Amino acid sequence: MNNPHPASHVFDSAISLRPMDTHRYSGRTAETYNNMVGPFGGITAAALLNAVLQHPERLGDPVSLTVNFAGPVAEGEFEIEATPLRTNRSTQHWLLLQKQDGEVVTSATAFFATRRDTLSEQQLSPPPAPRPDTLKRVDISIRNWFKQYDFRFIRGIPLQPRAADQPADTESLLWVRDYPERPLDYCSLTALGDVFAPRIFLLRDHFTPSGTVSMTHYFHATADELSKAGTGFVLGQAKASRLHGNYADQVAHLWSEDGVLLLTSTQSVYFKE
Amino acid sequence: MNNPHPASHVFDSAISLRPMDTHRYSGRTAETYNNMVGPFGGITAAALLNAVLQHPERLGDPVSLTVNFAGPVAEGEFEIEATPLRTNRSTQHWLLLQKQDGEVVTSATAFFATRRDTLSEQQLSPPPAPRPDTLKRVDISIRNWFKQYDFRFIRGIPLQPRAADQPADTESLLWVRDYPERPLDYCSLTALGDVFAPRIFLLRDHFTPSGTVSMTHYFHATADELSKAGTGFVLGQAKASRLHGNYADQVAHLWSEDGVLLLTSTQSVYFKE
Repeated sequence: MNNPHPASHVFDSAISLRPMDTHRYSGRTAETYNNMVGPFGGITAAALLNAVLQHPERLGDPVSLTVNFAGPVAEGEFEIEATPLRTNRSTQHWLLLQKQDGEVVTSATAFFATRRDTLSEQQLSPPPAPRPDTLKRVDISIRNWFKQYDFRFIRGIPLQPRAADQPADTESLLWVRDYPERPLDYCSLTALGDVFAPRIFLLRDHFTPSGTVSMTHYFHATADELSKAGTGFVLGQAKASRLHGNYADQVAHLWSEDGVLLLTSTQSVYFKE
Repeated sequence: MNNPHPASHVFDSAISLRPMDTHRYSGRTAETYNNMVGPFGGITAAALLNAVLQHPERLGDPVSLTVNFAGPVAEGEFEIEATPLRTNRSTQHWLLLQKQDGEVVTSATAFFATRRDTLSEQQLSPPPAPRPDTLKRVDISIRNWFKQYDFRFIRGIPLQPRAADQPADTESLLWVRDYPERPLDYCSLTALGDVFAPRIFLLRDHFTPSGTVSMTHYFHATADELSKAGTGFVLGQAKASRLHGNYADQVAHLWSEDGVLLLTSTQSVYFKE
């Protein structure tokens, strides 16, 4: 099931970086992951995490990542400045700045740590869902980046008309994985945590401008668990708690096919009117 | 009900800052909000937000705040460097660094915006709870900062023995407000979002080392809603989705007494063994 040439996957090309000096990397936006304006936020987040992962001073594995989408990322070259702000015995805090023409387009902070076996307790079980192979791939290829994922919705497809007697519900539940298949790792999990459309699209049947302003991922998955998840689907659930005054939150979770919680993620999302 | 002298409240002294130059403020840890090691994280987060709120270039109100607790904050003086990374027409992204002796002890990013009336939809209702005046204040004054809050637990008191037949549950539900009363504002809401003990303490009846490494707040509350909440209690609910390999997440929500969702908050929390 493992892809023998993971480096040839379109995802790996999209997040690849070239070291410039100790703390700086250069990259290039990939047309394959274009959104309406600029790249899919998930691919930007994955590239930022990738800068830390390949930094020679990096310690341990990602535990948390916050990405702030400060301004539009233009097609073309960008630079990522990855600075270890503080390194303790088994933990490390990072500041990440993505720049174009000297201006910050994305800022981020990341926390890495070496983890040890401890009490292990999963409080949140995956919602009941039919197996992914019993569901059809939803073809929503109106944006380039959609084509790079295999989406299998259980409920909550964005921008669908809602019956008048159906209550407003911002929940989506879906299976998703890279298309074509690619073994799960911290970078692809980072991008998968951002595949949910703005929750406002569950209340509206027509497109309106909307976009993530800040996103936070907590990585529960250890390297072993990612390896075990392999090229399988992840089950993603996302819902808003409140949409109000141009901004909505989103609380999301991703589980492996065998029910292990891999990621808890939250977003603050702008929406127009 | 409004405090006629809010500046005299112990909370205001604890988060007060003195401008040093354009982007730097100096402050001092307050013994009143001491935790076991260093200050209560919520008071540090509130001081960081306060730096932006009093910055002359600040635009709009807080929408999101992420605080990374990078190292212990020593008792005494600290400096906060508040830099606007990017200012757009109605939005602003900030980088915040709290330093002691030139070393970063806390890093943060904040997103501010001017908000307009839009579609408004609350998806998450407060859990049913008896009114706060029917409950007794819980006196858990083993740390200084506990004394500055009026805690009224409905369920999920930390470090309580659990009956063998009772399932492990990391949920806490409680009413809380400043003690003595103080009108709610963005800074006090920021601190209130961090009053939940580490969720590991709901699975254990004895203390073990634990602490927040990163916290993200999404402010749903507008200035009007904060003003309306006044000196009332807020209803706080917190639970973990997974505790594993030294780290747990926590998803929390705070509602006003009349059921308006004011804050969605998440944390990544270290715990030993």
